[in-house]
Amino acid sequence: MTKKAVVILSGGLDSSTLAYYLADKGYQLICVSYNYGQKHIKELESAAKIAANLGAKHHVIDIRFMNGFLQSSSLVNQDLDNPKEDYARENMLVTVVPNRNTMMLSLAWTIACAENAELLAFGPHKGDNYVYADCRPDYFNALNLALRLGTIDSRHEDLELSAPFINFTKTDIVKTGAKLDVPFADTWSCYDGREQHCGLCGTCRQRRQSFIDAGISDPTSYEVS
Amino acid sequence: MTKKAVVILSGGLDSSTLAYYLADKGYQLICVSYNYGQKHIKELESAAKIAANLGAKHHVIDIRFMNGFLQSSSLVNQDLDNPKEDYARENMLVTVVPNRNTMMLSLAWTIACAENAELLAFGPHKGDNYVYADCRPDYFNALNLALRLGTIDSRHEDLELSAPFINFTKTDIVKTGAKLDVPFADTWSCYDGREQHCGLCGTCRQRRQSFIDAGISDPTSYEVS
Repeated sequence: MTKKAVVILSGGLDSSTLAYYLADKGYQLICVSYNYGQKHIKELESAAKIAANLGAKHHVIDIRFMNGFLQSSSLVNQDLDNPKEDYARENMLVTVVPNRNTMMLSLAWTIACAENAELLAFGPHKGDNYVYADCRPDYFNALNLALRLGTIDSRHEDLELSAPFINFTKTDIVKTGAKLDVPFADTWSCYDGREQHCGLCGTCRQRRQSFIDAGISDPTSYEVS
Repeated sequence: MTKKAVVILSGGLDSSTLAYYLADKGYQLICVSYNYGQKHIKELESAAKIAANLGAKHHVIDIRFMNGFLQSSSLVNQDLDNPKEDYARENMLVTVVPNRNTMMLSLAWTIACAENAELLAFGPHKGDNYVYADCRPDYFNALNLALRLGTIDSRHEDLELSAPFINFTKTDIVKTGAKLDVPFADTWSCYDGREQHCGLCGTCRQRRQSFIDAGISDPTSYEVS
């Protein structure tokens, strides 16, 4: 029987590459995306394209009922601008969505239990670790233990949280994605959610630099080139 | 400034007593209840009464979008009867709602961050530990660590998961509640959700026995006495 993996798919470059990476390893994928009232809700169109490309089941979960509790983040608060600086901790702190990954992973773990999956995967990388507390190995090791202990009677015995790119740079992810023919043009990174990538926010800057460093042609249209 | 506590309030005897217990300790309470499509949705009326009695803020969060993934549990699946036997592990396994506490606690932790609270409390007791994996100390110690590590930048520095009744029997909880004048008649335990407590399901049996063992008059109306 084919092994199943549930993947948190934002529609960004990292999680899209992760989905291709797991499909390439033979997993049957169940993709899970979240609407939490992010300005860049456009990323969910990308998530839908990627899931469709892979012929994967795709759940979009609406957790906008939590939006009122997330207003400290510039990713959801219309009165806070997303920073237009490099993807570094001090610049990016205002983008932190409180407890985002635990909410997303907890709900998706329930889906993984119901699907009898062996993996719940998400796509943080080395650069994220530094910026976001809920992308660090110590965090997700603790969460993996809690999720496993709490569902001894409900899950596939092997079910584990997995973050295959945790020690990758974003440049490594671009290289990995290129080998797997990930349709990068279908993915979305920009924290503002306009027609094109803005080219100036931290995540646009990091996306662009990663293609340059990987020596791979960047298919993204940026407003500011 | 008054310290704040977020409390998971099902409307049952344990969590209602917990709310009174924390109010008595001087916490300003924010109560959080969940609608996950439980047959005993009636418990939410009890939760509303308890929150109103205490003058506490009360959030009812609708997570019925997860209902389709919870159908292994007799608490939500209309085709599975709730067991009419003693509250023991082998009898109660079919009632397990996969990953319930992690979902509830994760969402409530986000509220605790936004509220700048010092405590996120929930009400499992010694009898639950034995039945439900997500009521055991090892589980919530791991979850506490994960939640804290994941929100270093977003939470009150002291914010902790807390389960004050983890080493109490339900009889101890009844005794504690009696001292605090908890309006037990306003609380709801029965896993079936009819007009009166059924008197036969595991949680009714345990409720009834706890009042007897505590030597406290039981105000509950049971269908079968």
